[in-house]
Amino acid sequence: MLQSPPAEPGMREEEVDTPALILDLDAFEANLDAMAGFLAPTGAKLRAHAKTHKSTVIAKLQMARGAVGQCVQKVAEAEQLAWGGIPDILVSNQVVGARKLARFIALARIADVAICADDAAQVAAIEAAAEAAGVRVPVLVEIDVGMARCGVEPGPPAVALAERIAASKHLRFGGLQAYHGSAQHQRTPEQRAASIAAAADSARRTVEQLRQRGLDCPIVGGAGTGTFRHEAASGVYTEIQAGSYAFMDADYARNDDAPPFRHALFVLATVMSRAMPGVAVVDAGHKAVAVDSGLPVIWERPGLRFVGASDEHGKIVIEDGAAPALGEKLRLVPGHCDPTVDRYDWYVGVRRGRVECLWPVSARGGMA
Amino acid sequence: MLQSPPAEPGMREEEVDTPALILDLDAFEANLDAMAGFLAPTGAKLRAHAKTHKSTVIAKLQMARGAVGQCVQKVAEAEQLAWGGIPDILVSNQVVGARKLARFIALARIADVAICADDAAQVAAIEAAAEAAGVRVPVLVEIDVGMARCGVEPGPPAVALAERIAASKHLRFGGLQAYHGSAQHQRTPEQRAASIAAAADSARRTVEQLRQRGLDCPIVGGAGTGTFRHEAASGVYTEIQAGSYAFMDADYARNDDAPPFRHALFVLATVMSRAMPGVAVVDAGHKAVAVDSGLPVIWERPGLRFVGASDEHGKIVIEDGAAPALGEKLRLVPGHCDPTVDRYDWYVGVRRGRVECLWPVSARGGMA
Repeated sequence: MLQSPPAEPGMREEEVDTPALILDLDAFEANLDAMAGFLAPTGAKLRAHAKTHKSTVIAKLQMARGAVGQCVQKVAEAEQLAWGGIPDILVSNQVVGARKLARFIALARIADVAICADDAAQVAAIEAAAEAAGVRVPVLVEIDVGMARCGVEPGPPAVALAERIAASKHLRFGGLQAYHGSAQHQRTPEQRAASIAAAADSARRTVEQLRQRGLDCPIVGGAGTGTFRHEAASGVYTEIQAGSYAFMDADYARNDDAPPFRHALFVLATVMSRAMPGVAVVDAGHKAVAVDSGLPVIWERPGLRFVGASDEHGKIVIEDGAAPALGEKLRLVPGHCDPTVDRYDWYVGVRRGRVECLWPVSARGGMA
Repeated sequence: MLQSPPAEPGMREEEVDTPALILDLDAFEANLDAMAGFLAPTGAKLRAHAKTHKSTVIAKLQMARGAVGQCVQKVAEAEQLAWGGIPDILVSNQVVGARKLARFIALARIADVAICADDAAQVAAIEAAAEAAGVRVPVLVEIDVGMARCGVEPGPPAVALAERIAASKHLRFGGLQAYHGSAQHQRTPEQRAASIAAAADSARRTVEQLRQRGLDCPIVGGAGTGTFRHEAASGVYTEIQAGSYAFMDADYARNDDAPPFRHALFVLATVMSRAMPGVAVVDAGHKAVAVDSGLPVIWERPGLRFVGASDEHGKIVIEDGAAPALGEKLRLVPGHCDPTVDRYDWYVGVRRGRVECLWPVSARGGMA
């Protein structure tokens, strides 16, 4: 059941029912503008990652500022975006299973869709699905550029898979997916620069070997909010797949030389108990704010520290300064925005203290 | 948007789209029966916690086996249960905010509902809401029995709050909420026994002091799956609020002298990449299976170990034995069932390899 929204346009923020997902619209728009401004001179294009926002509204705002399309991780996300009118969607991931592939392929009738593969059996499965539907779709080869998760080895194994794609009647070779996920949260700029230099070398070498085999590489995609400045400057990456930049996690802010974005996404919580001395308990635990990348940070309330999350309770220690009152509302900066958004049905868009809009998290819960 | 279910009745389990929430019906029913059988001779009644299952279907199955009602943590959960016909619901938590209290009070017209308080201001707010609606509702005093989160001190502070409730025209004193959450996952039986002995002493002392002031204490509620045997044997607890027993977390199974329940809840995942030697990647990361109480355990596949969860990927190390094939489906036992269920729209009920039923997670996403 889609839950009713926790607010109405025109309300003051402190009237919003909690826990609620607050999007600070001024900061959010500034982030979209900042990324567009940064990428414009580099030649690299933004293909923003919708796994962060799961929203056709936000996808359209990114594309209005120059993004060439969207990435998704799952077919259910691709469906929501395609149904909502997004014209260019890359599933930046493997999709295994005949039913899912059939659903993916069906989208080729209403949008430009592409997908990744790291296995010859998968290429055959995508070809079979495309043939059955009578369409032709681009397939990118995912290469492992340092994350040790999915992806074939750069160089000859990637070239062999690309040739297999190119030789498939209902497929086109779409390029390389070369995302280095584990580099995003490396703490020092030097670590991140070195990781992406190595990833870009792997990609560049593979592009060159593809060229020698007569295969053009239309897309080299990758990068996230932690490293995009390196990929964009590499000369080899053509598409930047950052997503979190729009919201800015607490954890990204812990990187040295943190990316230049403002915190735009918050979980609004209410103080629901002040019974323990020195402690305030809020109604946002780890069901309301993801803790996989650390606990949330309390926004603009020095002296308050979020120290523990249980299912529906967040425990705050009052270190100094004014203690919050029972019923007071606090903004929490999530440690990790993507899974936090995924817990909600609605964004509550706020500008200067007033609710301006409600946007559904339309691709939430699409597990498959 | 409510997502379409990942399966249809009659399918084989391996045909279910993934990630999906699998309820093994034989194990689940055995757990419900085991708890009913355990409590019958103790005199303590089950008021199962719906924060675990968020399902009116499961609530009804628990009540058919003798549960006197359900607990919830949030008004949105209480609404779903009351709308679905559950006749007796305790919000085992504080609810702060006039809009939420009005919603809670409205349920008193269709069900027996009760709520907790740990602050005199809250008692006044509940009284105001009940007066406005022209109803009378029971309010329990939450006492802190060792968790140091919510709740007033046992003894005189609890008695004072109970007297304030009893003196409020539209409230009744409903009893004591005495839940020791942090004891649930203490590893040794001795630790858990000592924690609950102390909690029961606090509750018993407070009940006696209430009696001296002429206040009867109809309910003393608490306990979870980790400790319920102690509360049920205490002679002071009248209602057992276990929830996880129905599903049985991987983390509860790590307790010494683990509670006598079977793993009934699984996340079904598909192997989506075998590109890395010695590694299988599944399509279930921490958006699909909660990791706040540890990583999931792979069910009945010795030699496979789940070693890392990113947003949509789970990384499995192949330690020995037969490696899983691309496309193979694996059952994961969640470290923590409650927040795992909260990520899904549907239970897929499976019996001996076949999908038997689909049940909505009807109270999911009710953040407020």
